[in-house]
Amino acid sequence: MSSEFGTILRVGVFGESHGRAIGVTVQGLPAGEAVDQAALEAFLDRRRPGRNALSTARNEPDRPVFLSGLYEGKTTGSPLTAIIENLDARSRDYSELADKPRPGHADYTAFVKWGGAADMRGGGHFSGRLTAPLCVAGGIARQILARRGVIVGAHLHSVAGIADKPLPMLPDRALLESFGEREFPVLDEGQGKCMQDAILSASHAGDSVGGVIECAAIGLPAGLGGPMFDGVESGLSHALFGIPAIKGVEFGAGFAAAAMRGSEHNDPFRMGEQGEITTETNHAGGILGGITTGRPLVFRVAVKPTPSIAKQQRTVSLARRENTELVVHGRHDPCVAHRAVPVVEAVTALVLLDFMLEENRAFFGAPAR
Amino acid sequence: MSSEFGTILRVGVFGESHGRAIGVTVQGLPAGEAVDQAALEAFLDRRRPGRNALSTARNEPDRPVFLSGLYEGKTTGSPLTAIIENLDARSRDYSELADKPRPGHADYTAFVKWGGAADMRGGGHFSGRLTAPLCVAGGIARQILARRGVIVGAHLHSVAGIADKPLPMLPDRALLESFGEREFPVLDEGQGKCMQDAILSASHAGDSVGGVIECAAIGLPAGLGGPMFDGVESGLSHALFGIPAIKGVEFGAGFAAAAMRGSEHNDPFRMGEQGEITTETNHAGGILGGITTGRPLVFRVAVKPTPSIAKQQRTVSLARRENTELVVHGRHDPCVAHRAVPVVEAVTALVLLDFMLEENRAFFGAPAR
Amino acid sequence: MSSEFGTILRVGVFGESHGRAIGVTVQGLPAGEAVDQAALEAFLDRRRPGRNALSTARNEPDRPVFLSGLYEGKTTGSPLTAIIENLDARSRDYSELADKPRPGHADYTAFVKWGGAADMRGGGHFSGRLTAPLCVAGGIARQILARRGVIVGAHLHSVAGIADKPLPMLPDRALLESFGEREFPVLDEGQGKCMQDAILSASHAGDSVGGVIECAAIGLPAGLGGPMFDGVESGLSHALFGIPAIKGVEFGAGFAAAAMRGSEHNDPFRMGEQGEITTETNHAGGILGGITTGRPLVFRVAVKPTPSIAKQQRTVSLARRENTELVVHGRHDPCVAHRAVPVVEAVTALVLLDFMLEENRAFFGAPAR
Amino acid sequence: MSSEFGTILRVGVFGESHGRAIGVTVQGLPAGEAVDQAALEAFLDRRRPGRNALSTARNEPDRPVFLSGLYEGKTTGSPLTAIIENLDARSRDYSELADKPRPGHADYTAFVKWGGAADMRGGGHFSGRLTAPLCVAGGIARQILARRGVIVGAHLHSVAGIADKPLPMLPDRALLESFGEREFPVLDEGQGKCMQDAILSASHAGDSVGGVIECAAIGLPAGLGGPMFDGVESGLSHALFGIPAIKGVEFGAGFAAAAMRGSEHNDPFRMGEQGEITTETNHAGGILGGITTGRPLVFRVAVKPTPSIAKQQRTVSLARRENTELVVHGRHDPCVAHRAVPVVEAVTALVLLDFMLEENRAFFGAPAR
Repeated sequence: MSSEFGTILRVGVFGESHGRAIGVTVQGLPAGEAVDQAALEAFLDRRRPGRNALSTARNEPDRPVFLSGLYEGKTTGSPLTAIIENLDARSRDYSELADKPRPGHADYTAFVKWGGAADMRGGGHFSGRLTAPLCVAGGIARQILARRGVIVGAHLHSVAGIADKPLPMLPDRALLESFGEREFPVLDEGQGKCMQDAILSASHAGDSVGGVIECAAIGLPAGLGGPMFDGVESGLSHALFGIPAIKGVEFGAGFAAAAMRGSEHNDPFRMGEQGEITTETNHAGGILGGITTGRPLVFRVAVKPTPSIAKQQRTVSLARRENTELVVHGRHDPCVAHRAVPVVEAVTALVLLDFMLEENRAFFGAPAR
Repeated sequence: MSSEFGTILRVGVFGESHGRAIGVTVQGLPAGEAVDQAALEAFLDRRRPGRNALSTARNEPDRPVFLSGLYEGKTTGSPLTAIIENLDARSRDYSELADKPRPGHADYTAFVKWGGAADMRGGGHFSGRLTAPLCVAGGIARQILARRGVIVGAHLHSVAGIADKPLPMLPDRALLESFGEREFPVLDEGQGKCMQDAILSASHAGDSVGGVIECAAIGLPAGLGGPMFDGVESGLSHALFGIPAIKGVEFGAGFAAAAMRGSEHNDPFRMGEQGEITTETNHAGGILGGITTGRPLVFRVAVKPTPSIAKQQRTVSLARRENTELVVHGRHDPCVAHRAVPVVEAVTALVLLDFMLEENRAFFGAPAR
Repeated sequence: MSSEFGTILRVGVFGESHGRAIGVTVQGLPAGEAVDQAALEAFLDRRRPGRNALSTARNEPDRPVFLSGLYEGKTTGSPLTAIIENLDARSRDYSELADKPRPGHADYTAFVKWGGAADMRGGGHFSGRLTAPLCVAGGIARQILARRGVIVGAHLHSVAGIADKPLPMLPDRALLESFGEREFPVLDEGQGKCMQDAILSASHAGDSVGGVIECAAIGLPAGLGGPMFDGVESGLSHALFGIPAIKGVEFGAGFAAAAMRGSEHNDPFRMGEQGEITTETNHAGGILGGITTGRPLVFRVAVKPTPSIAKQQRTVSLARRENTELVVHGRHDPCVAHRAVPVVEAVTALVLLDFMLEENRAFFGAPAR
Repeated sequence: MSSEFGTILRVGVFGESHGRAIGVTVQGLPAGEAVDQAALEAFLDRRRPGRNALSTARNEPDRPVFLSGLYEGKTTGSPLTAIIENLDARSRDYSELADKPRPGHADYTAFVKWGGAADMRGGGHFSGRLTAPLCVAGGIARQILARRGVIVGAHLHSVAGIADKPLPMLPDRALLESFGEREFPVLDEGQGKCMQDAILSASHAGDSVGGVIECAAIGLPAGLGGPMFDGVESGLSHALFGIPAIKGVEFGAGFAAAAMRGSEHNDPFRMGEQGEITTETNHAGGILGGITTGRPLVFRVAVKPTPSIAKQQRTVSLARRENTELVVHGRHDPCVAHRAVPVVEAVTALVLLDFMLEENRAFFGAPAR
């Protein structure tokens, strides 16, 4: 019952949406790794709310304050803690919800689990806002990985059923990094425009939409992970399902593999031009037997439509134990899929760095010995 | 890098396909829980090979021998270890594969990770055979859960693209238990016949097919799990991706949720006939904010087509570093989805029992205090 | 390589002595538990520096700021994070030490492990100052335990070789709580006066002394813990050795048991006056086979003399790789044993609460179900 | 509540004294490490019972059968499981104990924890017999460490209050390895003879004695471990207290440090002859701030006198809830300290290998990359 993940690299998130501050502690980071603050803030801005009509109007600068673990711009080796203050919380908007749980939200289950004790203002510890500190930790992990040639990038595979172009089989660094530079992370800008229209249209109807995020990592060494329960799929899915609103995770061909034949799905091995072993296709998504093959790691996650919508909904009164209606006020995202793209990158970078540290910590940092 | 999962209930699998024995150790089981051996063996028979043309001809009785943790038919509280001897291994069939990794299999990644040291005969520790001890552990967990009214059951949602009828929104105990009594675990026997034909047809073509398994658990209390990384989805997916050949996991509406609107996807709360709080629909699959709602837990897993096929495939020689061809001999399953159905039930039961023990160990066992 | 401990209750400490703030995150606390701030601050004052000549002159009010997990005076169920700002750090005092490692301190090993990257000002993450957030967490755990009749208390068994009276075999609540109310936590005030004289005498000589702390917990149910590696001794010693300067841990008769005969050391079982099972003696310190007996838990820890002393010492220059001399300036404790007494209580309360939550979470909090 | 320890290297012990078999699973071993069976059996013989009057007459050859993880004499990288059959159990000797708990033994606490369900014949899972599989795992770890120059050796520091000569400050490989070649592991054979006389004398009196074991490890790199709760002292003590009968652990000067002054206890740093950094003394026992210094790791553990003695003892009847007397029949050790010497070495080797794997897995095994 902890809000942590990881083996060598332990990432723990704390805070409530309308509490004093939210934050993250990362234990096990290699020492002496530089953190580029400007690059980190640019990464955080990708999920920041209040930038346009596609997301909640809550305006939070989301600038992390580092309490420990960072000294003269480099990681120290001891636990790194960063906090983000909650500045624009409007808790009065949530008073009705203490009695009327929002459909599709954790109000009810938190009430069952913790009685009235949970601080559920703004979604409390279940809020999507908790992904901000995750991005602080993951943004640092991305920098450490990039320094070793491992690049993580994600795009919107679809929003509201509108599909982007698929990722090429061998995405290059420029492509993966380009997603972070775009206003809206898609390959096909025309399709991206349609997605944005669908989000705004749902917003005007007092409704919301979901989407699918596709993420890739290149430059990974073959041999990370292991058989059975400590495989790369196990490690990644464990952490990815910790992101609020994620309801599905699939690797490589994923659910489509279930309708393929073995002769079609198997990726034939071939010798590459540099004498390396490679594969003709990548239906495995870069993982065989839980272990990386050295081909791009590719997976998709399903993001459900935001449960907080303006439309009137049916619910119950917990106090009166009777049916009632609910109109959710407050400021909500008509879609969280696009804001979740950097979150998926962040979580992926953290999990991959953990696997790399487990495999070979000596690859990182620069001890004096 | 361990073959274990769980927090309070720790499940560790060991063994290689052609080694002396495979087995499982379960730590943290409540003491004094009866194990019905006949029911356990009937459960194991559901995944046992060699029963018909739908699975490998390798004939293994797969009878567990309990070394510890079971005394006079009941769990003792200390670690339970059961082993299954490997009786019908034919290792000569695998000699070629030491040099030519099978596409879609872990031969190559195991070679990268462990050099020549891994015992990869018959797939070694990566073999689907390792799911037999998982079923021993899970079969015991199923009995402990059933005694408290928690029933886990799974059916084939599809095989080779041929779909079964969907589960009803509120599957009852009789339905979930019926899957274990059928030769082929489907709701619609006509569709089940078509699936079997597709498997045999692939087999005759020297090929294989995949499928999707849908699993439900009823009788769970609301309030299991927690926010973020120790949620029920995180715990289940972590363990489920440890089952060989699983490439996707989705809960409730899953990937389909990504194309729904919030007003459609949200499950309205309603008062039930007994004064309990319930929902009109169950798109959440019984989980909100990582915590069980008390509605049926529902999820699906994608099973890829068996990578070991009789057809000639392209691969490389590891020793000569050149392209070559491979024909896999030996006895292989043309489909593992149907044999994986009890494995998914087993893993699910173990994860759910772990969550229940974490929530309230006092609910189990019968200490003398 | 993390600064955490615990299974169900996870306690993680972060911060460096001269960084922005130090703090603690506690995951897995039961929800709805009241925190008495005045009692917590009184507990923290017991280890606070700057109160008299017996401890460092560094003046830190050490008032925790709660960022999350506490709402309207009660725990929320989600991670609790508290921070303490570093207000009176004087980093210039430490500049020489970056090159000349202090004997008996972690300067050298931190340099080896993390190169020059560690922020070792004031001892960095190795500083005794990190025990302040531990006391915040442990102070809360003490309150939760006390509400269930479990009382933890410790006294100075000896300082500089001067011994206090031994604890009675059955210490009562009043006695254990009295240690916290005394200026100097001993049973025999005369001996306590001698100890204080020894500390001041060492201080005047530019030197330091150590001590032994004896801790007891009463009101524990029998049956906590388990055989082998998750026993109470394993759990406690793991956490206790995490307190800086602790070099030994012994339970019950401890090292003295090694010179006793079995007939003398064994605690005979007897029926108590209320029909309960009890023991005539308590050489086991309340633990048999790693499991609590229901008798008082009793153990002692050895605290080494403070390594930072004013006297000139022999050391090396890391840069010049040559022998040199060192005089440590700055403000240091001539003894940390007395300030470590509440720290030992804090760690003990956290570990015991973890064991109790693992055994029976339902005993705590007040979920709505 | 598991019988496991370790982070990267996970060691889990299973079995009951009079069950079918006892055993161990080790996860995370590097692949390709040779296991010298003759050397392993010689190591196991050091703790084997039935060799002379100093130990129990139970005659067990204790030859491990490897079920997995070992192939053609080398570790495979997947979980290694070894079992040892129980051949000479005489369960009738234990029938009375189900009702009358032995003083000083886990009979009572197991009854409280697991009700009547525990298989407590011969001490069940709490039996010292469970240290045999620990020695199998630790014997392999010792070989892996020795291949990298890390040597672990222990002697009897005292038995029944009779002291051996102390270890020299810098024990060499020959000395540490010599303990394993002696009938009785002491430095001073005269004192060893006195110890054996004391054991036999206690045995004739129907009684038992305890002892202190001192263990050293040389060749360790500086920089293993970390601050606070993942330090070397925390990791070692956690595992050492899992050995039955251990009641105290102290590092370096240990409890004696509490009576020393800082100027006396601090180990001055000095440049060594090869230009390495060394210390004049080693009161720290090779650990500062939880991290190895590169000096010998030195610690002592207290072993209590065997609780099972022939003398009549006072106890209670659990069924009749009344006081009664007990005479323990069966075959018991008058002292377990000498047989625990290789067990302490085994556990130490496992913990140190875990720290080394965490620090630098690339140092081990021989992957093909």
